[in-house]
Amino acid sequence: MRDCSKILIAHGGGGGLSYQLIKELFLPAFENPVSKKLDDAACLPLQGKRIAFSTDSYVVKPLFFLGGDIGKLAVCGTINDLAMMGAEPLYISAAFIIEEGFPLDTLKRVINSMKEIAKETGVLIVTGDTKVVEKGSLDQIFINTAGIGYIDGDLNISGSNAKVGDVVILSGTIGDHGIAVLSQRDGFKFESRLKSDCAPLNKLVSKMVEKSKNIHVLRDPTRGGIATTLNEISLQSGIEILIKEKDIPIRDEVRAACEILGLDPLNLPSEGKLIAFVSGEDAHLVLQAMREDPLGKDATIIGEVSGNTQSRVLLETIIGGTRIVNLPEGDLLPRIC
Amino acid sequence: MRDCSKILIAHGGGGGLSYQLIKELFLPAFENPVSKKLDDAACLPLQGKRIAFSTDSYVVKPLFFLGGDIGKLAVCGTINDLAMMGAEPLYISAAFIIEEGFPLDTLKRVINSMKEIAKETGVLIVTGDTKVVEKGSLDQIFINTAGIGYIDGDLNISGSNAKVGDVVILSGTIGDHGIAVLSQRDGFKFESRLKSDCAPLNKLVSKMVEKSKNIHVLRDPTRGGIATTLNEISLQSGIEILIKEKDIPIRDEVRAACEILGLDPLNLPSEGKLIAFVSGEDAHLVLQAMREDPLGKDATIIGEVSGNTQSRVLLETIIGGTRIVNLPEGDLLPRIC
Repeated sequence: MRDCSKILIAHGGGGGLSYQLIKELFLPAFENPVSKKLDDAACLPLQGKRIAFSTDSYVVKPLFFLGGDIGKLAVCGTINDLAMMGAEPLYISAAFIIEEGFPLDTLKRVINSMKEIAKETGVLIVTGDTKVVEKGSLDQIFINTAGIGYIDGDLNISGSNAKVGDVVILSGTIGDHGIAVLSQRDGFKFESRLKSDCAPLNKLVSKMVEKSKNIHVLRDPTRGGIATTLNEISLQSGIEILIKEKDIPIRDEVRAACEILGLDPLNLPSEGKLIAFVSGEDAHLVLQAMREDPLGKDATIIGEVSGNTQSRVLLETIIGGTRIVNLPEGDLLPRIC
Repeated sequence: MRDCSKILIAHGGGGGLSYQLIKELFLPAFENPVSKKLDDAACLPLQGKRIAFSTDSYVVKPLFFLGGDIGKLAVCGTINDLAMMGAEPLYISAAFIIEEGFPLDTLKRVINSMKEIAKETGVLIVTGDTKVVEKGSLDQIFINTAGIGYIDGDLNISGSNAKVGDVVILSGTIGDHGIAVLSQRDGFKFESRLKSDCAPLNKLVSKMVEKSKNIHVLRDPTRGGIATTLNEISLQSGIEILIKEKDIPIRDEVRAACEILGLDPLNLPSEGKLIAFVSGEDAHLVLQAMREDPLGKDATIIGEVSGNTQSRVLLETIIGGTRIVNLPEGDLLPRIC
């Protein structure tokens, strides 16, 4: 572990320090065949069946932003983590830690968002917990959701399954969530009507897995953006990924905001997008299925797995050069999800 | 809901306001046949099998106390919630929210405790999440654990299953955890070498369910103590519970501390004790099995379900009178678990 004795913001940012913390502290402590895989959810045997199990805490600030709020994010986030294993999300837990004095009406709005998404997706919120801490011990409210999904017999989707010849599909524009949240934060008051893309991806995924048994990897590029997601997959699978900058869909508002703020759009979180690694022969079938879903209408091929076995991500830039896309380092955006 | 527009400490204390928040806000929003039961874990169908699913956040202060720490508490707490459904705990998730600047060595100590308990119990910690928030946005570290257990075919244990004629068994002394934590907190520096009873109860429970199919309710009296636990069961099952003060095991140190601090031991949390409602004919069989386990060696019968259908808890006091034990109101002990 890097020589630092204290937890830094970057330890939670999804980039290099997060990866180091997991590899050097959490994995050795909790070592078992499942946790080693480093996927969005664990794939677990249960009485001859397979389930997916995932957890995430949400500390987003502000609590409400265009296109969503902490409640919607908490339910969608866990649904998406399960969906990224090809699982059908079934059950969700909701644990609230609330600062004393938090307005009850605001809590009601948050819970209502969670209710709406649960209803829309058919997922049941089945168990919960509420802790209240003294004023000043927590900034407003944090929510944890964990979820259980069912994985059908013949699916085998994991970040470690990317193969030479796979095509990399992205379901739509990147960074919308990151810029939507930042633009509404104190100190970042630039004009933007950009909405977060926060959305549940389970229906999109079910359409995809229905069409092809050759989807090898699914991952939603949240914390750390597609730079992190692609690096993780390249490390897990031991492959080199080539992507083309010109093919990555980015909204003009996101691009402009990144220029103002000095951010790389590849590091920005999305909350309703996915990356799929699909065998070349099935790529167009999967792409077509994705484009028929509202959440996949802008789906496009952004790259491929090369024949090189070096774990790295290469970007062909718009001007024609090639650069390595690193796992982001330093202080990534805190409290964006 | 009581006329208050803000969240109070008592909304998270496990007493009357907690109950009201769940009944009037969470349950109507997340209504489904499972969440309505209000048990420690949800019992869920999954592909013809039954699983238990539970979540809890841990915000205990101080992080380390005699007999345990936040990590041990977080793993034991979720193991116990699953065990209280008669489930065999299998998988646990661990989500950390950490304040920027938190010492890495302290995090290592906490993780090591979690590792030790997982190893001891055979439960696997399979998935996780780490968020870091800016200094001042959170007091040190909060941990959420969720867990999945397997419920064997013929078990049917729930707070709503208490029956007339059931005997109430308590596995040991109450309040040890509450006083152990309070005694080590700034401002409460009274002398005490009392250890928290924090422990995983899954092995004790498996011995109990092996002996009897007539265990109707299992519940661990954590937040709000046995006063809360018994009131919840009486409300869920629509029954009257009679307990005898003289039969409730309380350590002298706990009794003395309660007198100094003006606390009722019935409201104090334990973290390694359980209450069982067992049909009269099986009570001694179950009691014997409990006493053979180190965590049940002081198990004793403390009361019974009466023939009265009014949902309430009655205590026969040492001096021979009878009083109603209410769901605790007001500011219960914050951050004790």
